Amino acid sequence: DNSKLYCLGSGQQHLNEPLLDHREGQLFLTEAFKVILEEVLCKGIDVNEKVCEWREPEELATLLDLELREYGEQQHQLLQRVRDVAKYSVKTNHPRFFNQLFAGVDYHALTGRFLTEALNTSQYTYEVAPVFVLMEDEVLSKLRSLVGWAQGDGIFCPGGTMSNMYAMNLARYRAFPEVKLKGQWALPRLAVFTSQESHYSVMKAAAFQGIGTENVFKVNVDDRGCMITDDLSEKIELAKSQGAVPFLVHATSGTTVQGAFDPLEPIADICDRQGLWMHVDAAWGGSVLFSKEHRHLMRGVERWESGACSGIQLLECNFDLLKRCHSADATYLFQQDKFYDMSLDTGDKSIQCGRKVDCLKLWLMWKAVGSQGLEERVDRAFAHTRYLVEEMMKREGFQLIGKPEFVNVCFWFIPPSLRGKENSPDYQDRLSKVAPVIKERMIKQGTMMVGYQPLGGRVNFFRMIVISPQLSYQDMTFFLDEIERLGNNL
Amino acid sequence: DNSKLYCLGSGQQHLNEPLLDHREGQLFLTEAFKVILEEVLCKGIDVNEKVCEWREPEELATLLDLELREYGEQQHQLLQRVRDVAKYSVKTNHPRFFNQLFAGVDYHALTGRFLTEALNTSQYTYEVAPVFVLMEDEVLSKLRSLVGWAQGDGIFCPGGTMSNMYAMNLARYRAFPEVKLKGQWALPRLAVFTSQESHYSVMKAAAFQGIGTENVFKVNVDDRGCMITDDLSEKIELAKSQGAVPFLVHATSGTTVQGAFDPLEPIADICDRQGLWMHVDAAWGGSVLFSKEHRHLMRGVERWESGACSGIQLLECNFDLLKRCHSADATYLFQQDKFYDMSLDTGDKSIQCGRKVDCLKLWLMWKAVGSQGLEERVDRAFAHTRYLVEEMMKREGFQLIGKPEFVNVCFWFIPPSLRGKENSPDYQDRLSKVAPVIKERMIKQGTMMVGYQPLGGRVNFFRMIVISPQLSYQDMTFFLDEIERLGNNL
Repeated sequence: DNSKLYCLGSGQQHLNEPLLDHREGQLFLTEAFKVILEEVLCKGIDVNEKVCEWREPEELATLLDLELREYGEQQHQLLQRVRDVAKYSVKTNHPRFFNQLFAGVDYHALTGRFLTEALNTSQYTYEVAPVFVLMEDEVLSKLRSLVGWAQGDGIFCPGGTMSNMYAMNLARYRAFPEVKLKGQWALPRLAVFTSQESHYSVMKAAAFQGIGTENVFKVNVDDRGCMITDDLSEKIELAKSQGAVPFLVHATSGTTVQGAFDPLEPIADICDRQGLWMHVDAAWGGSVLFSKEHRHLMRGVERWESGACSGIQLLECNFDLLKRCHSADATYLFQQDKFYDMSLDTGDKSIQCGRKVDCLKLWLMWKAVGSQGLEERVDRAFAHTRYLVEEMMKREGFQLIGKPEFVNVCFWFIPPSLRGKENSPDYQDRLSKVAPVIKERMIKQGTMMVGYQPLGGRVNFFRMIVISPQLSYQDMTFFLDEIERLGNNL
Repeated sequence: DNSKLYCLGSGQQHLNEPLLDHREGQLFLTEAFKVILEEVLCKGIDVNEKVCEWREPEELATLLDLELREYGEQQHQLLQRVRDVAKYSVKTNHPRFFNQLFAGVDYHALTGRFLTEALNTSQYTYEVAPVFVLMEDEVLSKLRSLVGWAQGDGIFCPGGTMSNMYAMNLARYRAFPEVKLKGQWALPRLAVFTSQESHYSVMKAAAFQGIGTENVFKVNVDDRGCMITDDLSEKIELAKSQGAVPFLVHATSGTTVQGAFDPLEPIADICDRQGLWMHVDAAWGGSVLFSKEHRHLMRGVERWESGACSGIQLLECNFDLLKRCHSADATYLFQQDKFYDMSLDTGDKSIQCGRKVDCLKLWLMWKAVGSQGLEERVDRAFAHTRYLVEEMMKREGFQLIGKPEFVNVCFWFIPPSLRGKENSPDYQDRLSKVAPVIKERMIKQGTMMVGYQPLGGRVNFFRMIVISPQLSYQDMTFFLDEIERLGNNL
């Protein structure tokens, strides 16, 4: 029980011994590891188990007994809580989880994350993170070579949104270095350009960084969701005519919904002519750089000034601006009289102080499968996507929204009752209600998870994501069959 | 070997089976868990083992063989890499790690973090994070009740800096809601007030959010590092006289170096009179709220508009502004036609899109020890600090920099050769060189780690942090003896 693990009472007599019993603590962790292995990793990947165990919020709150109380609980109760949290959480490693832009499990990456958590350090100085300072540098440098740069700088960020925010700040600082000291009042009104289908973080960044969402000019896209560069030129002129000063084009490699790639070469030409910072949000599509067959989707990538890179959420930047733009020179952390090379204390490049270690998981996975293995994963995802699209075209009820450029497969499911009714006046309205109902059914039954959304003039459609390395043809067949099963009576 | 774990070759024949062998992957994870237990957790807490295994950067890079290559490695090699990463990393859970504002290990929190990593979801919607949406709400609400609020809002952030940035944005938005749309140009020049010893993230935030570092007015502090409220009033008038509009006072509960608590009651009075947002950065000191004995240090806390809370890095806010201020209403993620209560899709309150789950580790630890156990930890840290200070005062070579308000113990070690030489002209210069040399020696020998820095007019002094629940008196005695051993011949 707890009295073994924690010496109770705060009397003086206890101050002479640690509050924690490490042996008991490690025993608990070991038992909990077994639960994680069983409940999350083994059951999570089993197609006979549910992707999610749906409960209404009130019921779930009761089941979990969330309340935090005055006194602690016994070890066996806590272990049951670990089991419950696992049970009622969504299994994102399940082969039928297609709901977000992440899925599956990589055991080496997961090992790297466990080790990161156990070591519990922060990425600010060589002193406190010697291994990770060097490792982050190696990973960033390797990624720069994929982009095609011999030099540059970079940083791991807590998510793609933060990477995009860094880029916005760097671009502003390069154009107007006085902004750091004086703020935006010293600057003319600025203008950012991004496609209509870019990630919503551009708007969040503009709001957060004092630029203002109305100064984000949305550039038109073609049917596939790719930026129309003629319209980019027009929007730049429009901004200028309103007295705003363009400073940043935020292009996208792999849009969130359609997986579209903006044409980087012509965008880079425009940026060159206009003297604009070109940032590419490749938080989703950047993995194509690993593939000889598919990296053409990002042709021109070496011309970006900065990029938010795939999955791993980091910023690559071809200028040495990170430190100058973000430094605050805290003497308590970045002492200038250390006995080692203080350029290794890279924390002041970050806007964060404490910064979690994010490089280890990627490094260990890369060591495990090699660049060749990463390339194989990318190629495989494209091959699976092709397969799914072909199978979909063979079935009556599936209507693709364009041919995928990437691994996002967007489609409507047309239930039998709506087939051939495209011209009836309530068709769009009825079609818009199909995906939400199918979604509700699949979640409540727990058989799979896939997202839907409206976009532009298109009513609700599904977005299937084909990336998990654990997928096989049979999962795709299951997916199509299951959509039909859930939606055929609508 | 790897061919077992990863099916090599990308030929069509492999697309019909998963790329991963889960059994092999789980075996690797299990073996790696044993290594983590042995190398990080068992050796890490053993006072006979080193806190850090110092290597020069070049040597370490060679030892780690960091290079990422074309082909993957075998499982036994990868396991050795896990061992090497652990070996050469700093053991922040070691009883003699006093280097940062974190230390020690809590096995329930660590279990929560392992589970978080294994579940690998994002905190944006109830759909994909049902357990964690409810859990975050419970933890935030419990913390608000510690502050003394019956209602309000909050969010977990990736670090205290981000919490402070959120507060700056909320304060600006409350004062000038048009900033979200129009940017800072629509606003007058703004002014922020914070103490000279507040965290450097205030400057980073001002630079990042377009406010400008020169618009951060630094308020004088007393000897202990607490904000002088008369000077706050003067600085507010100064800002106004320069045409700037005050909008935010950023107070600190627990400064980084001295652990000082700004006087919240008088600051709140000033904020009330002037109509300013009062934010309290309690990222370090906020844990005193758990203690009946010590929460007086934050008297007036219930009057803050927002606070960055201790260790767990979150923002508490007594207005319902988070969503309005930060939302971007992405339809692909926050669909408005879902079958459950969509107010549970809390992700749009965040500036991030993907947001890691941070509530589980705190929740599980809290369940394990109860509010009473958390209070005990806080009281214990204060008691240990008192003990250390008393012991320090008995020894000739230790000169305290004021009496600690919190668990930061700041002191100079005066080596025998400098004792009684306070009036010699090179005393300060020679004293400034003592801490760096002692630090170099302790790191190279790996016996312990503690930070030093100059501050204001004071030359380099040590900052000892007494918080780990695994500390005992003997660690404190060791600390004092070791400083003497390393520094007596200087």
